[in-house]
Amino acid sequence: MMLETVAQNRSFGGTQGVYRHASETTGTEMTFSVFVPDHRKGTGLPVVWYLSGLTCTHANVTEKGEYRRACAELGLIFVAPDTSPRGEGVPDDRVGAYDFGLGAGFYVDATEAPFSANYRMWSYLTRELPEVVLGHFPVNPERQSIMGHSMGGHGALTIALSNSETYRSVSAFSPIVAPSRVPWGRKALAGYLGDDETVWRAHDAVALIEDGARVAEILVDQGDADQFLTEQLRPSLLAEACANARIPLSLRLQPGYDHSYYFISTFMADHLHWHSRRLL
Amino acid sequence: MMLETVAQNRSFGGTQGVYRHASETTGTEMTFSVFVPDHRKGTGLPVVWYLSGLTCTHANVTEKGEYRRACAELGLIFVAPDTSPRGEGVPDDRVGAYDFGLGAGFYVDATEAPFSANYRMWSYLTRELPEVVLGHFPVNPERQSIMGHSMGGHGALTIALSNSETYRSVSAFSPIVAPSRVPWGRKALAGYLGDDETVWRAHDAVALIEDGARVAEILVDQGDADQFLTEQLRPSLLAEACANARIPLSLRLQPGYDHSYYFISTFMADHLHWHSRRLL
Repeated sequence: MMLETVAQNRSFGGTQGVYRHASETTGTEMTFSVFVPDHRKGTGLPVVWYLSGLTCTHANVTEKGEYRRACAELGLIFVAPDTSPRGEGVPDDRVGAYDFGLGAGFYVDATEAPFSANYRMWSYLTRELPEVVLGHFPVNPERQSIMGHSMGGHGALTIALSNSETYRSVSAFSPIVAPSRVPWGRKALAGYLGDDETVWRAHDAVALIEDGARVAEILVDQGDADQFLTEQLRPSLLAEACANARIPLSLRLQPGYDHSYYFISTFMADHLHWHSRRLL
Repeated sequence: MMLETVAQNRSFGGTQGVYRHASETTGTEMTFSVFVPDHRKGTGLPVVWYLSGLTCTHANVTEKGEYRRACAELGLIFVAPDTSPRGEGVPDDRVGAYDFGLGAGFYVDATEAPFSANYRMWSYLTRELPEVVLGHFPVNPERQSIMGHSMGGHGALTIALSNSETYRSVSAFSPIVAPSRVPWGRKALAGYLGDDETVWRAHDAVALIEDGARVAEILVDQGDADQFLTEQLRPSLLAEACANARIPLSLRLQPGYDHSYYFISTFMADHLHWHSRRLL
């Protein structure tokens, strides 16, 4: 389990690193970033996993997310993985669309050819990458939380709902909550998992809740000027599912905010404080 | 004086905008960003001008500078101009080097052909852009401060030293303090201003101070792991000049920090609080 250090920069009294490793799961090299605040030797710190949205790599949130000040204050490690496998030979959307293939792994293990060989982000994020991170960084495995943006909000919600013993808390910015019922999600789930919609339910937060999956609570921030709000995101579907399942959902509609990192960075510290209180 | 709005995003309870205008000074279109925190109608807010370093546009600090939270808290407008004229017909370094020409205007009015037609960043920043900004944004012209990074630290220091009636305070991250005496500066000043080094002195902070220019005080943060520290930046030259001139200089050597925005963002809020106290 070799880990290559791509870059390390001192920032906010900690180390912002970018790392690369050969992934057995995806059959490619995978790059991710980790912020480690300064800490006492031998301590295991809580960790927040951040899953990014369509078109992103680890770099978007690392450069624009404004998470380091809060992580340094709270003593949180912050991990930002990539959104898909990449590299020569990794199949992409057939016309290179932004919403499928490279940069759009949708946090599933693909079963459809030609994607099934590499597009295994579910296993990568729930098994291989946690092992790599726990093996190389001072993380306390009992104190993990997960969050994400848009497609990454979908990833965070579905992973937390399916692994509630692993993640103490889950939050999202403008998440895709019901991919089976919106264009981005239907294209991705059909492309990666095939046409049988019953197998999609394991990768649809609303369907998972309808089918009995539970988390203690959920925090969601959503801009009301988000161009994707009504067609792709539809947070009311999550609100309805949570209400029926009695999952406490704090869904905060933020007036004037859009889908960008200008929105995410504004509420990032809020989310980190919220997770930190649940990671004590 | 037409101003085109390129983008506006709600962020940290304010508006982050990007704007474009046809500059008479440079003969090109110029793009800049402005953050305006929410405020009472009719108020004139204090403004901080931020000048960027080599290769940058307005976008680098706008995306990575992490200034909005502090500006919103303190009620500061933040303006980030470009670092050179750009566009078809604007001459560049003859081999396209990063340290001269496009992205490297060095905040002077060039007198040498072919640069003298467009490379007039001194006049642009001290005359035309302030007029544009004061005409379109709720700025109190009596409450202006200036700061910058690297080449932009050079710009901030020389502009403040030459216009101490306009700027209440000046600070810099890893500034070029004595361009006449370092490779980046010597190349730029010769290229834009010609070989007579006596005319360079008006664009060299250390020389300006030696020649009698004064500001009330200066704040500088400098990473001690900055790869440009000893050859290009040489902050000790500024320390010596300030000591001789009895200008209070707070030169903070930050252990482990480099030349990047991971460094700048760490200390940005400190600088904004420092300026804000001087803008009361």
